[in-house]
Amino acid sequence: MTPADIDTAARVLAPFAVRTPLLSSPALDARLGAKVFFKPEMLQRTGSFKFRGAFNKLSSIPQAARAGGVVAFSSGNHAQGVAAAAQILGMQATIVMPADAPVSKRERTKGYGAKVVLYDREREDREAIAREVAAKHGATLVPPYDDPKIIAGQGTTGREIADDMAALGLSPDIVMAPASGGGLVAGIATAVKAKFPQAMVMSAEPEGFDDHARSLRAGRREAHDAKGRTICDALMALIPGEITFAINGRLLSHGAVASDAEVAAAVAFVFRELKLVVEPGGAVALAALLAGRVEATGKTIVIVLSGGNVDTDLYAKLIG
Amino acid sequence: MTPADIDTAARVLAPFAVRTPLLSSPALDARLGAKVFFKPEMLQRTGSFKFRGAFNKLSSIPQAARAGGVVAFSSGNHAQGVAAAAQILGMQATIVMPADAPVSKRERTKGYGAKVVLYDREREDREAIAREVAAKHGATLVPPYDDPKIIAGQGTTGREIADDMAALGLSPDIVMAPASGGGLVAGIATAVKAKFPQAMVMSAEPEGFDDHARSLRAGRREAHDAKGRTICDALMALIPGEITFAINGRLLSHGAVASDAEVAAAVAFVFRELKLVVEPGGAVALAALLAGRVEATGKTIVIVLSGGNVDTDLYAKLIG
Repeated sequence: MTPADIDTAARVLAPFAVRTPLLSSPALDARLGAKVFFKPEMLQRTGSFKFRGAFNKLSSIPQAARAGGVVAFSSGNHAQGVAAAAQILGMQATIVMPADAPVSKRERTKGYGAKVVLYDREREDREAIAREVAAKHGATLVPPYDDPKIIAGQGTTGREIADDMAALGLSPDIVMAPASGGGLVAGIATAVKAKFPQAMVMSAEPEGFDDHARSLRAGRREAHDAKGRTICDALMALIPGEITFAINGRLLSHGAVASDAEVAAAVAFVFRELKLVVEPGGAVALAALLAGRVEATGKTIVIVLSGGNVDTDLYAKLIG
Repeated sequence: MTPADIDTAARVLAPFAVRTPLLSSPALDARLGAKVFFKPEMLQRTGSFKFRGAFNKLSSIPQAARAGGVVAFSSGNHAQGVAAAAQILGMQATIVMPADAPVSKRERTKGYGAKVVLYDREREDREAIAREVAAKHGATLVPPYDDPKIIAGQGTTGREIADDMAALGLSPDIVMAPASGGGLVAGIATAVKAKFPQAMVMSAEPEGFDDHARSLRAGRREAHDAKGRTICDALMALIPGEITFAINGRLLSHGAVASDAEVAAAVAFVFRELKLVVEPGGAVALAALLAGRVEATGKTIVIVLSGGNVDTDLYAKLIG
């Protein structure tokens, strides 16, 4: 997966993906003594960056294999990305989702014409269910992150950040993005560091789900404790991907974490100051910044807000 | 107030205002069989378009008169726009606000360093209070809409819409914006029709506060009944402005209205589908579109979402 693969993905995505802008908050800049830019991927098609990778992957499936459709397992955002991409490309999508995924994510996935198969997160193996669907219908399995086409698609987020920073005549000191399997931040790091080699790219994770922070410290893939709970339903992967960590271990400086309370404060900040709807997992990089986990003074910082698919009840609680 | 005045305002605003993007919703386009674009002015500095007009007006005050500061009366968004513009330009702002204005709007106005003077909407005359402040301190009164500099500033919204539509190779059939005093829609109509003379520009208002709809039908300024209530706290002006209606009476096709329930549905739609926070008054044009008040099929439509300053409790209720 090279910057050239991201250029290719950008061409594939151009007619279908939203080219999200870079936004800023003068109030936040004054408070931190920094220049902070936000990449608002909740404005992306399907409400998260996941459409980028999914569409790039599905577009690469040979015509002969498209009749079998696609299958994916996902707690929600990847599900919607795959479902929407399949709908555009005229393919059937089957999504294996945990029964406790946010209702909005489930309903929206169905809304894109996908078949949803629910499983019990505690007792059933989603990968086995997905493989069974793949075998039965001849469907292509679309992995959530550990795939070069997926990573290249997510990388278009970083390519747009790099292009926009260059157009502003600015050079980012820090770029921070949420990490679950690590596909988004791997793609972003590849694209951003191709243009700005001195930029520090960081992952952000919920407390207790800090497998990237640990792995980056250790220099090899390490799982998190799997003991905690988090409101960041999108960021619960146990261990970094193999392909993603081959990239992230080389390109990322380190990983930050944020608590649920800090994430809630970030969601409320984004409601109040940016007038955007961010889901908990999408706000974790901002949460780490607002909690002072990053030396911000005098720096030019890009924060990726990765998605906005959140149930109404939870959202009302978080901003209240 | 000509398109050239809007060009000038655009140059004055460029270093300080957010150049808001045009967004779209593939789901909505499919549902309406139309191409709908949103101009998200909640992403503007201070959370509404009002910063544009305020900054353009304050920038036009001669240096010698700046020491006296500025005074404005406003239920909220104009207040924030004036306060933020004054802060940037190093002027003192005094804002006369109704005691029942949303708390968030009052607090944010103070946050920009303005002095807030509250008045009773039923029993006191805000214009008299503002004139008193102006006389006492030598402050310049900044009217909310009936002023060429204010209208030209708001018109930069329409100029950006026209530029972006041209860049997309599209020609808007309908452009619809919320109207209270009519400054925003007057500026937009001037800018849009300069580039796309065949475009239909429409005002949108809450039911019962339909002074623009009435006035456009009658061909002269008419007040609304002043009998109703609305959740659109930003859209309660009694009658179109004189200067704004001289423009709107000539350039607008007609006015649409939407009920509170329709506005609430539009706020929830924007939360769910666009991942943006819109305040009730900011959603009234979309509410009219979603309620079927506009023949949309096959059309290219631009909807202005004019602001996002809404109290948490009300917002939680509207999206629930």
